[in-house]
Amino acid sequence: MLQTYSYQDLSASEINKLISRNADEDQTIGQRVEGIIAEVRSRGDEALKAFAEKFDGVKLDKLFIEKAEIAQIAAGIGAEQKAAIDLAYANISAFHAAQKHQEAPVDTMPGVTCWREARAIERVGLYIPGGSAVLPSTFLMLGIPARIAGCKEIVVCSPPQKDGLINCYVAYVAVLLDVERVYLAGGAQAVAAMAYGTDSVPRTDKIFGPGNQYVTKAKTLIQSTTQTAIDMPAGPSEVLVLADEGANPEFVAADLLAQAEHGADSQAILVSNSSALISETVAALERQLAVLPRAEIAAKAIANSYAVLTADLVQAMDFSNLYAPEHLILATANWKELIPSISNAGSVFLGHLTPESAGDYASGTNHTLPTSAYARSYSGVSLDSFIKKITFQHISPEGVHQIGKAVEVLAELEGLQAHKNAMSVRISSVNS
Amino acid sequence: MLQTYSYQDLSASEINKLISRNADEDQTIGQRVEGIIAEVRSRGDEALKAFAEKFDGVKLDKLFIEKAEIAQIAAGIGAEQKAAIDLAYANISAFHAAQKHQEAPVDTMPGVTCWREARAIERVGLYIPGGSAVLPSTFLMLGIPARIAGCKEIVVCSPPQKDGLINCYVAYVAVLLDVERVYLAGGAQAVAAMAYGTDSVPRTDKIFGPGNQYVTKAKTLIQSTTQTAIDMPAGPSEVLVLADEGANPEFVAADLLAQAEHGADSQAILVSNSSALISETVAALERQLAVLPRAEIAAKAIANSYAVLTADLVQAMDFSNLYAPEHLILATANWKELIPSISNAGSVFLGHLTPESAGDYASGTNHTLPTSAYARSYSGVSLDSFIKKITFQHISPEGVHQIGKAVEVLAELEGLQAHKNAMSVRISSVNS
Repeated sequence: MLQTYSYQDLSASEINKLISRNADEDQTIGQRVEGIIAEVRSRGDEALKAFAEKFDGVKLDKLFIEKAEIAQIAAGIGAEQKAAIDLAYANISAFHAAQKHQEAPVDTMPGVTCWREARAIERVGLYIPGGSAVLPSTFLMLGIPARIAGCKEIVVCSPPQKDGLINCYVAYVAVLLDVERVYLAGGAQAVAAMAYGTDSVPRTDKIFGPGNQYVTKAKTLIQSTTQTAIDMPAGPSEVLVLADEGANPEFVAADLLAQAEHGADSQAILVSNSSALISETVAALERQLAVLPRAEIAAKAIANSYAVLTADLVQAMDFSNLYAPEHLILATANWKELIPSISNAGSVFLGHLTPESAGDYASGTNHTLPTSAYARSYSGVSLDSFIKKITFQHISPEGVHQIGKAVEVLAELEGLQAHKNAMSVRISSVNS
Repeated sequence: MLQTYSYQDLSASEINKLISRNADEDQTIGQRVEGIIAEVRSRGDEALKAFAEKFDGVKLDKLFIEKAEIAQIAAGIGAEQKAAIDLAYANISAFHAAQKHQEAPVDTMPGVTCWREARAIERVGLYIPGGSAVLPSTFLMLGIPARIAGCKEIVVCSPPQKDGLINCYVAYVAVLLDVERVYLAGGAQAVAAMAYGTDSVPRTDKIFGPGNQYVTKAKTLIQSTTQTAIDMPAGPSEVLVLADEGANPEFVAADLLAQAEHGADSQAILVSNSSALISETVAALERQLAVLPRAEIAAKAIANSYAVLTADLVQAMDFSNLYAPEHLILATANWKELIPSISNAGSVFLGHLTPESAGDYASGTNHTLPTSAYARSYSGVSLDSFIKKITFQHISPEGVHQIGKAVEVLAELEGLQAHKNAMSVRISSVNS
């Protein structure tokens, strides 16, 4: 059931094929999303209500739920669930708060002082998927760093439930984050509303959050056509488990299946230097899969996945770096020594007792991560995603003496006389 | 010549019009760029040679210049120019090296340890514009942080000069950066080559650099269609000078013109609480403009610019934050007190002796900055632009006790049984 390849038998083009992601995008989606965006731009709130009726099957009187009502809904949460969300909230807060950092100013020359300061992005839009799967964890992962950054306005969109409200877990997270409103909008229409603004939904500077192919397409489109930025491009979720002969096949199988249950297009890759570990994992996978509630989805994802047998762990890490996984689990004894050789990954889970699901929910790291090999160039969401770093510089009279001539010469050689003049007038004033 | 508005007389929609950028994009560019990209994808090096002949007017035998030849070309540089480039190199290096930062690990709970580590983006592509304007400063601004980050492969593309070679200043920067080759490709075709790869030009993970509308369009397209990222969206350059009654009109006029000479679509905005300063600056502007070599371009940009008279500096800063300028010059006595109120800007120049041109060339800050109000959500290029931050986590048996239950509960409430299992199997093993 899990196709196995031997690394040393693979040609370069076969490796390229293995590391390339499924890209059978529905070509009609682009047009449909463009249509949805155009509707939201021209008809605003009316379009959002019409789409809620069409896609979410609910007639909405107003497009948001306010604080008091959110608190009422949140009160329906169980004690065990509340404790679990509180624990996750505390850990995610602790990890993201530690990402605050103020650099010291640098005197690059006497009298020339340069530094950077962080400023929160003022208006951020958070998309929290809803519908069949309800994802309060995503709300924690986006809302906590937005609050720590100090964003002035946090706009939250989530598709309405069948009752025209929001789920109690999402409501409880909204309470923890002290959010004023949750807007009842899902899909591409929510993204369009946060990019262009409607009477109800404010326009934002940057949109965050995962979603289906419609949401993803809408984010890509607004990124290239509006002044609203996005967190990162998104594709199906994926894990690469790098396991040695001492790994526990039951654990490895459970980790692969945790990924596989996300969706039929998810990928769960096993890379190991031990053929025994691979075959034992495959056996455990079949046993565990049989009793999963989402077995059908997981089986499809597993059919879309594979194992790679390598000569050693160096080769295994080479393959992992080429694949650039969203999640990398190092189920090896020597995980500490392997860390420096990791060059491309979103988030890394170290040793036998650190499942990906710990990071998905509660360890403190962010679960919004680069997929589809974007880990080669993108970081996951962090406090950095909610701030800009502005550079500052100050030049004293001494600094003008130190740097003035070089600026004049460089402006001159680039043929920019007015750039030179702007320095020359200062040099004259300091010398006079 | 510089249209002046009174802030308090402006309606919200008039302010919106003032802060919105010129967006009269040539609609035919998209199709032409798509055609160029398709050519490079299908014909590779042959397409690059054909475009060099068509657009740069030069027949190329090979598509790159190598180290030895680069050094020969660089030897042609004058002593004064060499000293100026060396000074800029040292300052930019000092400022960007200070951006290195290793966060300490965080124990979010006993036995649950999380941290981030930086990894260089492995293959970066730098686009250095050439042709009429030669921009060695851009090469410094992109190449220095790439080297400090530790990028394995730095691919440099620059359009060939009429002699089929590169300019001596660009060559000298290549020597300083120890670059192996400079590829002779410009425009959209260079971007396509770095995104898809050709026989000569390696495919890269992220492309940096300014350019004309073709380059910008090509970057936008490859960002949404390939796995190659880009530094940021780009538009015409701009400055906002915020000046009080004590500012020097000659300095302010020189700063506005330094921006205006970039191109007819550049914007140079003056915001002041002093009508005297505005009228004196306008007079100085006319005098200085008359003797500029690029007066025609600058005059067009000035016609596209304006001044805003405000009641006080708080109002002036409000306008600046709405505009979100790429460059912000605080030509005021109280620049220190104004700093905390800056929320949107790319790079800020403090006081009367700090012209933008200092930062364009040599103070140490980066000059690749967000334009077109993208300063609301984007930072300028920095060391961060050339790295990813990977999150790591390790959980001990104690950590499994601390966090295990919460992970199970959260997975369950999101309906993800396999996520729960991945934690449950660890809990069982730790308890047994």
